[in-house]
Amino acid sequence: MALVVQKYGGTSVGSIERIRNVARRVAKTYDEGNQVVVVLSAMSGETNRLVGLAHEISEFPAEREYDVLVSSGEQVSIALLAMCLSDMGYRAKSFLGWQFPIRTDNSHARARIAEIPDAKIREELQEGGIVVVAGFQGVDTNDNVTTLGRGGSDTSAVAVAAALKADVCEIYTDVDGVYTTDPRIVPEASKIERISYEEMLEMASLGAKVLQIRSVEFAKKFGVVIHVRSSFDDQTGTLVMKEDDEMETVMVSGVTYNKDEAKVNVKGVPDQPGIAAKLFTPLSEANITVDMIIQNPSKDGITDMTFTVPHTDYKKAMGIIEEAAKTINAEEIVGDENIAKVSIVGVGMRSHSGVAAQMFQALSAEGINIQMISTSEIKVSCVIDVKYTELAVRVLHDAFGLAKSDVVQEG
Amino acid sequence: MALVVQKYGGTSVGSIERIRNVARRVAKTYDEGNQVVVVLSAMSGETNRLVGLAHEISEFPAEREYDVLVSSGEQVSIALLAMCLSDMGYRAKSFLGWQFPIRTDNSHARARIAEIPDAKIREELQEGGIVVVAGFQGVDTNDNVTTLGRGGSDTSAVAVAAALKADVCEIYTDVDGVYTTDPRIVPEASKIERISYEEMLEMASLGAKVLQIRSVEFAKKFGVVIHVRSSFDDQTGTLVMKEDDEMETVMVSGVTYNKDEAKVNVKGVPDQPGIAAKLFTPLSEANITVDMIIQNPSKDGITDMTFTVPHTDYKKAMGIIEEAAKTINAEEIVGDENIAKVSIVGVGMRSHSGVAAQMFQALSAEGINIQMISTSEIKVSCVIDVKYTELAVRVLHDAFGLAKSDVVQEG
Repeated sequence: MALVVQKYGGTSVGSIERIRNVARRVAKTYDEGNQVVVVLSAMSGETNRLVGLAHEISEFPAEREYDVLVSSGEQVSIALLAMCLSDMGYRAKSFLGWQFPIRTDNSHARARIAEIPDAKIREELQEGGIVVVAGFQGVDTNDNVTTLGRGGSDTSAVAVAAALKADVCEIYTDVDGVYTTDPRIVPEASKIERISYEEMLEMASLGAKVLQIRSVEFAKKFGVVIHVRSSFDDQTGTLVMKEDDEMETVMVSGVTYNKDEAKVNVKGVPDQPGIAAKLFTPLSEANITVDMIIQNPSKDGITDMTFTVPHTDYKKAMGIIEEAAKTINAEEIVGDENIAKVSIVGVGMRSHSGVAAQMFQALSAEGINIQMISTSEIKVSCVIDVKYTELAVRVLHDAFGLAKSDVVQEG
Repeated sequence: MALVVQKYGGTSVGSIERIRNVARRVAKTYDEGNQVVVVLSAMSGETNRLVGLAHEISEFPAEREYDVLVSSGEQVSIALLAMCLSDMGYRAKSFLGWQFPIRTDNSHARARIAEIPDAKIREELQEGGIVVVAGFQGVDTNDNVTTLGRGGSDTSAVAVAAALKADVCEIYTDVDGVYTTDPRIVPEASKIERISYEEMLEMASLGAKVLQIRSVEFAKKFGVVIHVRSSFDDQTGTLVMKEDDEMETVMVSGVTYNKDEAKVNVKGVPDQPGIAAKLFTPLSEANITVDMIIQNPSKDGITDMTFTVPHTDYKKAMGIIEEAAKTINAEEIVGDENIAKVSIVGVGMRSHSGVAAQMFQALSAEGINIQMISTSEIKVSCVIDVKYTELAVRVLHDAFGLAKSDVVQEG
């Protein structure tokens, strides 16, 4: 007998008929002799409807009330699933965030889970019940309702799995696993059977939108095994888990891309201590996240600084940097919105040399110019002209042998 | 400075624009120097939508989950109003049932309020805040969500007013008060300025649908003054309050009617001890509420029993009575669905004689036959043929001088 946490997203509970499907799958898992805890998102469209109401009434809705409002969506879906299971003859009980309670800090709309007492749930499971939990929501220590931010139900599920020391946390979604790259760009992309937390974090933060990044961090911290799979079939999906020796035999696990950044190039900067601080402190104060930063080797005491910011913050960042540039006597600011970042990710890089070189060669062979490079232990990212994005992804996917036909583990 | 509880129904918060109107009215009351607690229903249509979802998924929805589901409606309306007030610069905070907590018994979908601790609300009011409370919902002692039944928000409001010892509980609705009778039948019906709890209870239970009956019972028990008024204008409405000497000077306060009952006549019943129990115990076991019961004087040890039941239970009641009639050797069962009950209500009856006789004369003068009569201290009800309902109401309204033009208090 295993303890299984299953999380179903908004699409999977998007209609009465789909909720019935979820109930059947939950019942099947229970009938197979498992203890089952189900975590649900709101019915698809519902959260958007509620957010719409909030913005109809207020340009900047009061945060505390925003959380009260949007958390009502999950309240509906869990009640409906518990009803459906009861009707099928199962003992099923819904739990709202405050009923555990799922304790969070008091950052409304982006709260972090602090603590989940497991006593009530364990009791319910031991009495043979199926537990249905509202994802996305919690309560702070003053009993105010909080929410975890978009996609927060993944984090709820992993946190509940961690609290209960569940054997697996199954995340049901509308795709059947994590792919080596975006199948819309590379039809031969193959499903990854097992991927390490670190790789998944890089994949997620680089633009693969299967799992909320915080849920993976949480899973890594508490060693929760995540099984990403489809709610529309019974296929095994992708296991996200602790890195093992076998994973390292694969040099590159996936290729990702991100078109949501823009580049800022500050030319002719005096190469003196404190210059970087003068450029980046005002950006940070304006809540602009800087991603890649590159400083060219200094020539005659003069250097260039190049960095990327989210596309949505580009105009704001340019304004700030133009001001800052004056104080450091920079020669010129050049911005570029037409860039993309392509990356290769794999824990195998640690034990393989020449992975980056192989990436550069593959891009160069197609005449794709690399504008910026950034590397970490398990990832290499290159900024290129946005028009080459799809070509670059295909070329890299091919160069590292990730297509279905050639999923041969490289030694 | 007064402490005012204001309750707004579903129609009053039925759209974003109407919620803004409510916010303006709340703000005005606050600006006039009052402490304000607002109790809201769900936006009109929302509860029906949620009940619809429940019945789509299950013929008999699990009661515990039904309450979780439908209570989400008020969660939306209170958050939106609190947002709107915050936007207008007021300190406003929403409270869900569990956040007080509003403690109820564990009868799902028809829970009764047991206790409302006032500490949190008082603190919030003392700090200058406006408190916005979800009507209709509570929690039982095991922290399960409960609801109070249709129209339960009135009861929530009165209970909150009782807990806070509020100066007044204003119930905003789409009518501007309690009328001497249904203005659709008698256009000259006049608004009652002040009515006693007892009269209001008789009016409500007899078919005037302005206030939920339990809220009036609650108000009577705790001496809460209710002000029923319109959310669409600033007119004074009707005060529901403790009976005083002045009220007794009015002989009849209102005329009501009820077409929702049917009559069952059991003929030729042996007049022996235990006969009534044999007829009414099986009805009670089937959860059928019997309203009026009349037993004719016995003749030769044989009597008739006549009683009324809700129209919706009529067929079921006839079946049960036909079975029961066999065991007591009754001669014949005659049912009649085409009846109505018309009543006159007034605390003044206690000190005036001849009120019932005046009613019978008025009906008789129009050739309306009285089939059953039932009286209480402050009410006289007659069962008549349903086709005479409107005529009877008009005749009685006129006979007791209730029209606008002749609101002269009778001595």
